[in-house]
Amino acid sequence: MPDAQNRRIVLASRPEGEPKPDDFRLETGALPEPGAGEVLIRTRWLSLDPYMRGRMSDAKSYAKPVEVGAVMEGGTVGEVVASNNERFHEGDIVLGQGGWQEHSVSDGKGLRKLDPGTAPVQTALGVLGMPGMTAYTGLLNIGQPKAGETLVVAAATGPVGSAVGQIAKLKGCRSVGIAGGPEKCRMLVDEFGFDAAVDHRAPDFAERLANACPNGIDIYFENVGGRVWDAVFPLFNDFARVPVCGIVSHYNDTELPSGPDRTPQLMGAVLRKRLTLRGFIVWDFASQQADFAREMGDWVRDGRIKYREDVVDGLEAAPEAFRGLLKGRNTGKLLVKVA
Amino acid sequence: MPDAQNRRIVLASRPEGEPKPDDFRLETGALPEPGAGEVLIRTRWLSLDPYMRGRMSDAKSYAKPVEVGAVMEGGTVGEVVASNNERFHEGDIVLGQGGWQEHSVSDGKGLRKLDPGTAPVQTALGVLGMPGMTAYTGLLNIGQPKAGETLVVAAATGPVGSAVGQIAKLKGCRSVGIAGGPEKCRMLVDEFGFDAAVDHRAPDFAERLANACPNGIDIYFENVGGRVWDAVFPLFNDFARVPVCGIVSHYNDTELPSGPDRTPQLMGAVLRKRLTLRGFIVWDFASQQADFAREMGDWVRDGRIKYREDVVDGLEAAPEAFRGLLKGRNTGKLLVKVA
Repeated sequence: MPDAQNRRIVLASRPEGEPKPDDFRLETGALPEPGAGEVLIRTRWLSLDPYMRGRMSDAKSYAKPVEVGAVMEGGTVGEVVASNNERFHEGDIVLGQGGWQEHSVSDGKGLRKLDPGTAPVQTALGVLGMPGMTAYTGLLNIGQPKAGETLVVAAATGPVGSAVGQIAKLKGCRSVGIAGGPEKCRMLVDEFGFDAAVDHRAPDFAERLANACPNGIDIYFENVGGRVWDAVFPLFNDFARVPVCGIVSHYNDTELPSGPDRTPQLMGAVLRKRLTLRGFIVWDFASQQADFAREMGDWVRDGRIKYREDVVDGLEAAPEAFRGLLKGRNTGKLLVKVA
Repeated sequence: MPDAQNRRIVLASRPEGEPKPDDFRLETGALPEPGAGEVLIRTRWLSLDPYMRGRMSDAKSYAKPVEVGAVMEGGTVGEVVASNNERFHEGDIVLGQGGWQEHSVSDGKGLRKLDPGTAPVQTALGVLGMPGMTAYTGLLNIGQPKAGETLVVAAATGPVGSAVGQIAKLKGCRSVGIAGGPEKCRMLVDEFGFDAAVDHRAPDFAERLANACPNGIDIYFENVGGRVWDAVFPLFNDFARVPVCGIVSHYNDTELPSGPDRTPQLMGAVLRKRLTLRGFIVWDFASQQADFAREMGDWVRDGRIKYREDVVDGLEAAPEAFRGLLKGRNTGKLLVKVA
């Protein structure tokens, strides 16, 4: 075995608002021993995703929180380095939920072998994995894009947003992406083929968004909330659809924004414009995984869907990279290269 | 012809908040003359409905507002008293949009002959008309009731709410109705067959609602907003559906409620519980009119769906009755017996 020890990052304390560096703790422990039927996996890639902020809190949600003192959860791609499970062999590359650590032990449940010949293995954490499938299922099932419609998505250089905008283009929509800063906006148009990009940092952001959507908004793929929602809201066309995938701008909130309470305004627009707002998580559409893998795999191989990765080196860099993710500092799928 | 004059109620001024008596004006004018292809109709029944509050304001909506000085809009059942249209004959009973007046002229578009032999003609304004179809289409298309689920509806003795609760029962749901006062609550259970009724005037209303929904809420048919929404909101189950049909408690609002702004709380619940909120108006489902007429007609004839009417006498009583409607003073479908 390559190492005698295992480094891991645990949740040191539940954050109040923005996670602080000392809400995480790097620990070194003994290398775990795989028991009967188990495999030992050395992590190569760790995925960092906004949902992890939810796991750090103990508010009621669709998934249990990480316990204080426990290893942070996370999707991983790794290599089997020891196996007591007949389905897996040393050297296999596997997708799993190894968490923020250099080694993990698995009984094989939920572990999936990857074929390094078909695509770079870390894309199983991005465009061909959970973020890509989030984009695909949320957009197609809830957004229901039709040719000629206008789609808006924020965090648009991220792995979900960039896939949403590109799939909408394949369906004949006008795709408008929102991102922070001129460089990301250029990337949206030049690399990802969006029809327009709007910088949410611009003081006249709302006006720019309105100008980029001369025919209003038919689909808004919601992943940020806050100021972006405020700018999108008046532009909804009748019968607009809003897949609600995340509200990352609120994940660090410790209290509600000051008033007035705009709930009646929102419900009034839902009524008058006959909007559809529907929340989802990717596993609600688990039955569509094969469709996603086939269709998205084809699109990526054909170059019709492009993706971008933002790689940081070493497990110890994960907490700071994650803190940056919540502020939109990454460009593309944020990955930690662990080994 | 029976009268030489026509009395009508016009919009005298756009209300600020609650409509005042002098926002309406009773006028007497000459009896209109039907032109070529037109019919003259004497109004028998005028329907009063919450949507009319929207027509009194000039806020942007799905329908144009009534102009100041123009006759208030409204659905009517009347008798053809003169006809220059070969499709209609003197004595025909017709459903149309005659408005708040004793006589109206129509070119026949949107006018529908009723058969007094199949059902009391005024039911075409209630359980077998727009309110009944609102309940039917909103509940079945958006609410998607499944046996064993819990449905909640407010204004539950009204024509929409009572139909929603009863149709949900036919689909195997537990139906919980919300109404104002013990008498209406008794009626919900004893007459309409709801499983439980909750009085929204009770000081411990939210607690009572929670007790009436021991398994949470799967469908909330939204027609009032405000305090009822606040009590319903924490009780939503995962994947709950919310057909948004109206928010009558806000129709007289002149400003938003004080803070905090609960928009992020709402969107957070949409996400975490994967709620579906979808606004609609009945004509979005116009293609389902024949299905509705057949199925609801059967249910009403079989006594499986019951209805109740609240009749006021004389056109001049319409403004006060309408003001009461917005405060929940009616019990059952509010109709003005005009002639």
